[in-house]
Amino acid sequence: MALEFRVLKECKRTGARLGELKTPHGVINTPVFMPVGTRGTVKAMTPEELKSVGAQIILGNTYHLYLRPGHELIKRAGGLHSFMSWDRSILTDSGGFQVFSLGDLREISDEGVHFRSHIDGSGHFISPEKAVEIQNALGADIIMAFDECPPYPCDYEYARNSMEITAKWAERCLEAHRNTKTQALFGIVQGSVYKDLRKESARQITSLGFPGYAVGGLSVGEPKDIMYSMLEETVPLMPGGKPRYLMGVGSPDALIEGVIRGIDMFDCVLQTRIARNGTAMTSRGRVVVRNAVYAEDFSPLDPECDCCTCTNYSRAYIRHLLKADEILGLRLTTYHNLYFTLGLMGKIKEAILEDRLPEFRDEFFERYGY
Amino acid sequence: MALEFRVLKECKRTGARLGELKTPHGVINTPVFMPVGTRGTVKAMTPEELKSVGAQIILGNTYHLYLRPGHELIKRAGGLHSFMSWDRSILTDSGGFQVFSLGDLREISDEGVHFRSHIDGSGHFISPEKAVEIQNALGADIIMAFDECPPYPCDYEYARNSMEITAKWAERCLEAHRNTKTQALFGIVQGSVYKDLRKESARQITSLGFPGYAVGGLSVGEPKDIMYSMLEETVPLMPGGKPRYLMGVGSPDALIEGVIRGIDMFDCVLQTRIARNGTAMTSRGRVVVRNAVYAEDFSPLDPECDCCTCTNYSRAYIRHLLKADEILGLRLTTYHNLYFTLGLMGKIKEAILEDRLPEFRDEFFERYGY
Repeated sequence: MALEFRVLKECKRTGARLGELKTPHGVINTPVFMPVGTRGTVKAMTPEELKSVGAQIILGNTYHLYLRPGHELIKRAGGLHSFMSWDRSILTDSGGFQVFSLGDLREISDEGVHFRSHIDGSGHFISPEKAVEIQNALGADIIMAFDECPPYPCDYEYARNSMEITAKWAERCLEAHRNTKTQALFGIVQGSVYKDLRKESARQITSLGFPGYAVGGLSVGEPKDIMYSMLEETVPLMPGGKPRYLMGVGSPDALIEGVIRGIDMFDCVLQTRIARNGTAMTSRGRVVVRNAVYAEDFSPLDPECDCCTCTNYSRAYIRHLLKADEILGLRLTTYHNLYFTLGLMGKIKEAILEDRLPEFRDEFFERYGY
Repeated sequence: MALEFRVLKECKRTGARLGELKTPHGVINTPVFMPVGTRGTVKAMTPEELKSVGAQIILGNTYHLYLRPGHELIKRAGGLHSFMSWDRSILTDSGGFQVFSLGDLREISDEGVHFRSHIDGSGHFISPEKAVEIQNALGADIIMAFDECPPYPCDYEYARNSMEITAKWAERCLEAHRNTKTQALFGIVQGSVYKDLRKESARQITSLGFPGYAVGGLSVGEPKDIMYSMLEETVPLMPGGKPRYLMGVGSPDALIEGVIRGIDMFDCVLQTRIARNGTAMTSRGRVVVRNAVYAEDFSPLDPECDCCTCTNYSRAYIRHLLKADEILGLRLTTYHNLYFTLGLMGKIKEAILEDRLPEFRDEFFERYGY
């Protein structure tokens, strides 16, 4: 069995639950946030540092790794775990989202997607079978079905057609993956922002019997209340005994709201991306430490944080590093933002355990400034 | 007393010696290599990592810190140690070398140097007194006299004149620094590539009674055998009981040749700079890990190295990171090159202790490929 999932506790007043997900690379306590390691590295972080912020599973991007250095090379290196020296769990996406984001550079058919590399313009073709083959070579613990992720906004007909393609591709992925027992393949629910399509997609995908399910195609530009209402339509149709993963979502508010609606897994580039732009997530909201107002602020990024960055360095120093384009600046903000987010997940778990998640949300939102 | 220096052992067959340098921030075992932290950070490294590669003292650049974030700000932060969270020793240069490297952007007079910032073009003036004032504000354990570093090649008259200015400025620096007891001010010997000028400069500067002496103006483009012959002329005139510092020199061969000629301290950006360009220093010479030949080389940068980089990551992975412009690539090569260099200094010290430095040099050069 590639994956085991147990629900340990269900919140009485919300859809939230505490769970335990076991992969060949260890135990993951859910709800969990997965830092994104697009190209075989979570930007600016070592695996050791990822462990020290509490990461139990990270995400790799199939599209990027397929193009460079190539999945065959990574397979010869012993798989992605070995290649990047990360011995805990990994989830890879299917490459679908990145490929569809290429716009004019790609063409979709029932068979799959023809596209051009954003690096060198070379031509490629990814089908459901190919996406599974690449992910089998990468060797992540959890791999994702190849889906079509429609843009936002998207008309109803496009959304329905896209949902149907996603369902057919999901079956083909399952078939292609049939003989691989060490990796768990998750199905993805689509349906854009249409409630009936979300429900239909959930029924279609869950009927196929995957070991876990994702909600895809959200956080692509739609207002957050639409995202939350889509979750409310979809999650109740996803089996309670399987992990539920909300793809590409990870702002602090959406983490809390997602957990409340029954989501177990999240990933997002937000934490690491805004870190590199000089923005810290703190217990009192965002601090844009690049700003001149912090030039002589010798206090830490977040006075309530006990991470290495906040224990050792001031806002003034970090601002200086960022202004001077020093690598250490990006390291310190990235480390802090991941520590903050993993810490937030810890607090969410504690709140579920103590049956006070709604109160925790209200307190957090007030302090954070939502 | 800001500085204590003891020679623990002198090599019988060369000018090399083992020593112990005590500053208010700890003991430094000489001969020592000082990693360069130009702008308040050794590029890509944390202070903790610097300690783990064995760094006992690092260098800060007065010119860069004066312009950004400014010495007054650093003083208000509690000095450079506190600002960058480094509790071991620091040496700052005087800013002279950087200012003179500005070419058309600077104008030298007996009083000092007018120059324009390379960042924003703003006008500035640094005199010997100002260089000391800035370094007093930065608060390094060892600070350097403001000297004129002539370019290479340089005609005799220019070199003589420059040497005379350096001597006058050395006196003014001593006078300006008179009341600061917690920092040690080193004098700098100049004289370009002219033996008689080097000797005269050594006599001039050592007559002033500094607690340590540097040889400046070398490794500025002249052939290495000229650099070594300048050391042979100069070092014997520098008092044996004081530390001797060869500025801006740090290639593996020059470290060994410098120690053999009686040098105790070195600094160089080479290690960290070539690391960022994808070149590793190894026990078998340089490895340009960016090269295509390493694309599927799953062995470590240096098979004989036990650093974190070589223990955990392959050349293929590091090459992938560098090609993809991932920060972790720069971190891993930088860490390794500093570990290699500090390790080389350890082996040099061991060889002095065991009276086999000339043999060590021959073996090292053969293996390294000089």
